[in-house]
Amino acid sequence: MSTTDQPGPEPAYAARAAALLRAAANDLKRNDSAAEADLGLPPGTFAEYTSGRQPITWDLIGRAARVWPLNERDLLPIHDDTTHGLRMVRAKESEASSRIIERGGGPYYEYRDTAMSRLASYRPEWIRMLRLVEDDDPDNPAVNWNKGHLLYQFTYFVGPVNYYYRSDGRSYCVEMRTGDSVWGLPFAPHSFTARSDAEPAYILALTYGGELTGDSQRELSAFGRAATGALALPLGDHGALLRSIMAGRLMTVGELADRSGLTPDRVAALCAASTRADWSELVVLADALGVSVRELVAPHTTTEADVRIQPGRTAPRWAYPGDDRPAYRFTQLASDPLHPHTTSLEVEVLTSRPDTALPATYQHQYLYVLGDEPVAVRWRHDGEQFDGQLEPGDSGYVVPGIELRLSAAKPTRLLMLRISGAATPDVRFALGAMRPDAIGRYVAEDRLWY
Amino acid sequence: MSTTDQPGPEPAYAARAAALLRAAANDLKRNDSAAEADLGLPPGTFAEYTSGRQPITWDLIGRAARVWPLNERDLLPIHDDTTHGLRMVRAKESEASSRIIERGGGPYYEYRDTAMSRLASYRPEWIRMLRLVEDDDPDNPAVNWNKGHLLYQFTYFVGPVNYYYRSDGRSYCVEMRTGDSVWGLPFAPHSFTARSDAEPAYILALTYGGELTGDSQRELSAFGRAATGALALPLGDHGALLRSIMAGRLMTVGELADRSGLTPDRVAALCAASTRADWSELVVLADALGVSVRELVAPHTTTEADVRIQPGRTAPRWAYPGDDRPAYRFTQLASDPLHPHTTSLEVEVLTSRPDTALPATYQHQYLYVLGDEPVAVRWRHDGEQFDGQLEPGDSGYVVPGIELRLSAAKPTRLLMLRISGAATPDVRFALGAMRPDAIGRYVAEDRLWY
Repeated sequence: MSTTDQPGPEPAYAARAAALLRAAANDLKRNDSAAEADLGLPPGTFAEYTSGRQPITWDLIGRAARVWPLNERDLLPIHDDTTHGLRMVRAKESEASSRIIERGGGPYYEYRDTAMSRLASYRPEWIRMLRLVEDDDPDNPAVNWNKGHLLYQFTYFVGPVNYYYRSDGRSYCVEMRTGDSVWGLPFAPHSFTARSDAEPAYILALTYGGELTGDSQRELSAFGRAATGALALPLGDHGALLRSIMAGRLMTVGELADRSGLTPDRVAALCAASTRADWSELVVLADALGVSVRELVAPHTTTEADVRIQPGRTAPRWAYPGDDRPAYRFTQLASDPLHPHTTSLEVEVLTSRPDTALPATYQHQYLYVLGDEPVAVRWRHDGEQFDGQLEPGDSGYVVPGIELRLSAAKPTRLLMLRISGAATPDVRFALGAMRPDAIGRYVAEDRLWY
Repeated sequence: MSTTDQPGPEPAYAARAAALLRAAANDLKRNDSAAEADLGLPPGTFAEYTSGRQPITWDLIGRAARVWPLNERDLLPIHDDTTHGLRMVRAKESEASSRIIERGGGPYYEYRDTAMSRLASYRPEWIRMLRLVEDDDPDNPAVNWNKGHLLYQFTYFVGPVNYYYRSDGRSYCVEMRTGDSVWGLPFAPHSFTARSDAEPAYILALTYGGELTGDSQRELSAFGRAATGALALPLGDHGALLRSIMAGRLMTVGELADRSGLTPDRVAALCAASTRADWSELVVLADALGVSVRELVAPHTTTEADVRIQPGRTAPRWAYPGDDRPAYRFTQLASDPLHPHTTSLEVEVLTSRPDTALPATYQHQYLYVLGDEPVAVRWRHDGEQFDGQLEPGDSGYVVPGIELRLSAAKPTRLLMLRISGAATPDVRFALGAMRPDAIGRYVAEDRLWY
């Protein structure tokens, strides 16, 4: 059999694919003989696949997706392309991916890939501005706009870069300098130019898909545009959220009033308004609905015209672990409450020894060395300790759960972008509700359910 | 080309696969010529695939997963196997799926599949108890336990069924009657027997994967057991949640105290305790962290020993739309705040005309006719109206966003289970932040990003 007959084919991936097939059959309450009958396999062979002795082929996946109520992708795991939980990409590798994008009849951008991983939705690019302008006019005809893209974009600016963005038909230009940053919503058209060619003018365009990619996109794509639009909830609209929860539970205003002790008029008014109820009211409403209070609180956004700009000069700075001989100094870059699990920081590494751990986080991490000095990276993975070094222009990806220790012979600076993966708070609390011995079967089902 | 060379192959699925390929290339900032160079395609052919003129093959998906930092499943959409948003499964089809599971040397269960869809994580079974017992002893040797399974299980009981469950090494037996229900956590071992063969004894075992299946399982499976265990958050533990958010943002107690106006001692105490801070404290903490208050509120559970039992006789009942000549009467079945988007109801259809709409919901819906009379179903999909009928023992699946009108010549009863799909509140608020004209590109990217 050729490797093109199967996904994978690295052994750990193949083992996860085998476990998924067992889990899928369990979910459908098929034992081996029922699965063999369904899939047209000879008796005794299903266990060959679920044990990993036979590789899962495209043919088998296609067959399962035809006869069982599941999708091809439901049988496919993802690849771990890290080495001990990290993936480092050297500046030279990034340079090798260089490509020029032409706009308006001439070169406009130079793109270079930086560290990406099959485990995370980052698509981070180093982008140099090749178009020179002499003003901050958003209507300058030398500016070529894009059409926007699905991904969220966190941008860190280096040098004299003009940032252009457009919202509701209005165009804006902001003169950026090193240390400025912006966080932008999907599909917002934008552009970048250089105000000078006397010094480097580039950006780190750290795009990522977050909650909008993966399963949710697949599901909404199948529902279509109108149904997807109808599912949208307005930011900060507590009444819309309450109405949605009530509709989902087929709860009437009268019944909710009876259960909560609020008057029907008050419940109706809360449904009609976007403002938040008093906390004491939310507590009784949540109890009456059988949900936690968090489900009734709407998130808000601080974006204006689809972006949140954070000038470097006004960015909050703090020392870590404290003001007394700190190992790191952090500068908080652009972010927004809509993405509470996104952390963007400029990290100054002040310690020359790996003596101060950055605690493990639930987030994926991206690193890029901004300074002129290398950074030593020490980390632990599966109980073992590893050491590496990131040189200027190198970038890295770190899986969730890794404790990092950074140090540098001479103080230097990194850009750090942390994002949520698929393990959302809902998933993490569900794991917390699960029996500890069940986690092993959850990540790799190894047995029949009965 | 044979259809086994490609996923799909129905036209709408193929069109979604084509759009995904364009979106993947956009995310990676590859225009057509760069994509062709990466994938080894002849010049001018990439647009053939992204336009749908050439089908996406397993070979192309495998190639993309090897050269691009993505996974095979990232290029695969899901199938819509509904007809105008509904999928009805007749009692006869369920009967045809009948299979006997033997345990302890004899027949134990008869399983029948009911309505499932490739769009949702439901795996609902009708299960008849074939083992007869004469007591409620959980240690009765005639009882054969299973090992538990990944899926959440909502169970509705019909007839004299004994329900057994085990938690922390302790076994329980509850005598159930028609109308009783239970909601159980994943991997909790359980069993069912009949107390009598004089009347039907069966259950509707409505299992579903929810947030634990799909992307999250794939990601956590790649991280492994220890890393997954470390991501678990304890239910109701506000301090653990606050610590997790602070670690993610590399926030120190001192800096958070400075920003929020709370004392460092108070911040440290909130981190150490599982109890919730005062609401006014949560407001200033959320503001200081740059998140919404909902992110600092931990959900809780009402399960005991991994299950939540709802006896039918004490279940809340209410009329819809109101007490004055109601069209429906609802009985609230077992549920838990851990799954705030799961709704389980017994629905009495009291109206003989399709005059009262059940409002559209963001949830997927499952229906099973419990009563002896048929139910007429009227629904709208893409602006068109459709009519169907569910007979006793028939089941149905309904996509999110559908307004249903149920009616019955003689009053009858349905079981309804609504669950969340991948469009979580986070996704729905992200859609709300998106420009309305972007939704179309989100569900089906049709252009280059620049």
